Amino acid sequence: MTKTVTFYFDYGSPATYLAWTQINSIIEAANANLNMVPMLLGGVFKETGNASPASVPAKGKWMNSDLKKHAELYEVEFNSNSFFPINTLNLMRGAIAAQQMDIFEKYSKAIFTGIWIKDLNLGDILILQDYLEKNDIDSTTLFGLAQSDDIKTILIQNTKEAVMKGVFGAPTFIVDEELIFGQDRLNFLKSALKT
Amino acid sequence: MTKTVTFYFDYGSPATYLAWTQINSIIEAANANLNMVPMLLGGVFKETGNASPASVPAKGKWMNSDLKKHAELYEVEFNSNSFFPINTLNLMRGAIAAQQMDIFEKYSKAIFTGIWIKDLNLGDILILQDYLEKNDIDSTTLFGLAQSDDIKTILIQNTKEAVMKGVFGAPTFIVDEELIFGQDRLNFLKSALKT
Repeated sequence: MTKTVTFYFDYGSPATYLAWTQINSIIEAANANLNMVPMLLGGVFKETGNASPASVPAKGKWMNSDLKKHAELYEVEFNSNSFFPINTLNLMRGAIAAQQMDIFEKYSKAIFTGIWIKDLNLGDILILQDYLEKNDIDSTTLFGLAQSDDIKTILIQNTKEAVMKGVFGAPTFIVDEELIFGQDRLNFLKSALKT
Repeated sequence: MTKTVTFYFDYGSPATYLAWTQINSIIEAANANLNMVPMLLGGVFKETGNASPASVPAKGKWMNSDLKKHAELYEVEFNSNSFFPINTLNLMRGAIAAQQMDIFEKYSKAIFTGIWIKDLNLGDILILQDYLEKNDIDSTTLFGLAQSDDIKTILIQNTKEAVMKGVFGAPTFIVDEELIFGQDRLNFLKSALKT
């Protein structure tokens, strides 16, 4: 039976960016399905009592070097973002709008790249809209949709559902009933897809 | 030039136990030196503002399953400890005494095994002393020494020095100036020993 990876994500998480660079090849190799679920990481932190590793200065410093080591290992571009932590509310509502408009992969690539390679402040709605237009995405339509009550509700529900399933950070993958946390646990994700 | 791994540890950390099960083969393969430095993890948490993953219930639940997966990967025994978190003050002072008595490896094996395989409450000094005697370790001499001002001061200094070097959790390895955190970063430890 074909397995499905439910990938809970927030664009503001650098570890999620790294996992995103790897996920397609993992999905293809396992002949699995991918279900990307936008959630608000800040909401998850609040609900679970968790916090960003960067909230502990020594851990934040280590994490930065650790992310760079993983980027080298994966052979992908990665830069710290000068505006971290970015408020991702509009970005994550936008992700749901992009899913409904069937431009999700294009939108995700633009956002992940903008934050974690190009060092942009995509928490600023004006910078964000300008950036999307330059990437051939109709930001007026997208953010018109993103501000709908329907989409606001979906994001809240996704986040609540994530917490109910045991999610406390990002990226988190769920395969069958197994919760796999972290871009550094892709080996366990691959194993889960094999069993 | 022969490299040295400075391994900051606390027996109360399950991730440190897992790293300890792997460290000797890594050291041997790299022809490196190992410098085990006892520290008080509770003191490190207090100084850095960090906390045990178990302080976030959802993260604690995930971590438990993650530790078990790693134990399977490493093919070593591992059991959660019913008395976690254990107060390790006497255990860590005892580690320094054991280093001075030249029975450190025997003592460490007994303690790690007692907590993380046999599920003992080694935070209880009576249980601890009885357990050490059964393992052919002279607990009277050891804890006599462990209560000396000299050893109390060494433990405090080790902990302060760890924090000054950027340590925020356990296990932490330092090779040259590189800080490597976590039993899940042994690949980076191996790389650091190769360069």
